[in-house]
Amino acid sequence: MADLVEKSKKLSAFAAVDENLKPDHKVIGIGSGSTVVYVAERVGQSTNKEKFVCIPTGFQSKQLIIDNGLHLGSPEQYPEIDIAFDGADEIDSNLSLIKGGGACLFQEKLVAASAKQFIVVADYRKDTGILGKGWRKGIPIEVVPMAYTKVSLELSKLGGKPNVRSGLPGKAGPVVTDNGNFIIDCDFGEISPESVADLNSKIKSLVGVVETGIFVGMAQKSYIGNSDGTISTKSA
Amino acid sequence: MADLVEKSKKLSAFAAVDENLKPDHKVIGIGSGSTVVYVAERVGQSTNKEKFVCIPTGFQSKQLIIDNGLHLGSPEQYPEIDIAFDGADEIDSNLSLIKGGGACLFQEKLVAASAKQFIVVADYRKDTGILGKGWRKGIPIEVVPMAYTKVSLELSKLGGKPNVRSGLPGKAGPVVTDNGNFIIDCDFGEISPESVADLNSKIKSLVGVVETGIFVGMAQKSYIGNSDGTISTKSA
Repeated sequence: MADLVEKSKKLSAFAAVDENLKPDHKVIGIGSGSTVVYVAERVGQSTNKEKFVCIPTGFQSKQLIIDNGLHLGSPEQYPEIDIAFDGADEIDSNLSLIKGGGACLFQEKLVAASAKQFIVVADYRKDTGILGKGWRKGIPIEVVPMAYTKVSLELSKLGGKPNVRSGLPGKAGPVVTDNGNFIIDCDFGEISPESVADLNSKIKSLVGVVETGIFVGMAQKSYIGNSDGTISTKSA
Repeated sequence: MADLVEKSKKLSAFAAVDENLKPDHKVIGIGSGSTVVYVAERVGQSTNKEKFVCIPTGFQSKQLIIDNGLHLGSPEQYPEIDIAFDGADEIDSNLSLIKGGGACLFQEKLVAASAKQFIVVADYRKDTGILGKGWRKGIPIEVVPMAYTKVSLELSKLGGKPNVRSGLPGKAGPVVTDNGNFIIDCDFGEISPESVADLNSKIKSLVGVVETGIFVGMAQKSYIGNSDGTISTKSA
């Protein structure tokens, strides 16, 4: 069973790369997560890997790029990315995503927003159909530290249950992101696919919110590895 | 002439405090700028100053609070402020503001957003009627450093001329804000009062934008010191 899940992750990642990476692509976004490991492996097997510049979404993804012998690029130099591959914590029926379980949602979103084409690869457990059904309750929201009380208050007014993410066991007090901010995980229950965009704008518009872990209208295709070793694909 | 401007700043600040600070107010936002100096002075002259907690919008305003013998509070503890006083770089006919000349727009906006009542005090040179007419061209926008290229690209698509603010002469390279971010000054020319809110939402929604220097629907009243020593007041 575990072997089958692993096999399906690899199959879906390889299919995502093989079907979407084109000869004229130069700048590639590489995310992180257990399925994206195989994306990086497959990109690294390309015969013309020398011409690729890969933009990471965080520390783990930097390592993936380096370990597969690919060129590491920076988002500052490449605000336009030809194609990006990343995982997700939850995926709904419109290919809206929740990301940020690893507190790297900012750079992940920057890469996704910079990509002309954004492909999500994941295993079937992430394909929840409706956001808010995953095991990790809540939308990760990156906030400027001094604003966490005010943002929490406003999130409650929007109907959410906000919780500043703890840094334990590695760090007492809140998690501090790579940008020096806090993460609030805010539980809004199940979020219907139709209301995701509106909720996202409301949250992002709050003073103190740097970015939300809701990715709406960004993923164009999904490659999901199933538990029986098959893969499912979907286009937005 | 210079004396008259100074006198009118003091008159308008004193009037703003005398007419709006009420006996049941406890938490007061204190901004910064040459007119707000007199706001802090006047609040400090209050007979019941002991019961006030003052929330600063930045370093200069912390000093103003301390120098006038007032209690310094933190935004974390007081997400709800009874009344706040601050200056502005530009004020339009709807009392929309541009702020952020001093790169402290984030905390200024947090305090304004937390305030039940927000009063703007300034001298007549700031009362431009239309935003974008001031001497300092552009809207200050706080951005996460790694996103400055992408945000600049998107701001150009919105019709702006973005420019990363330099830290010279004190610091080579860009200004770094109190939150560790960069400031992009983006010139959109003159912005009609009717289009300010829409432009502000578009900018804030960009991935990488922490906050904009446009304050729309926040100021309820303005106290403007004129060059002839008189003051003008206006309500939104």
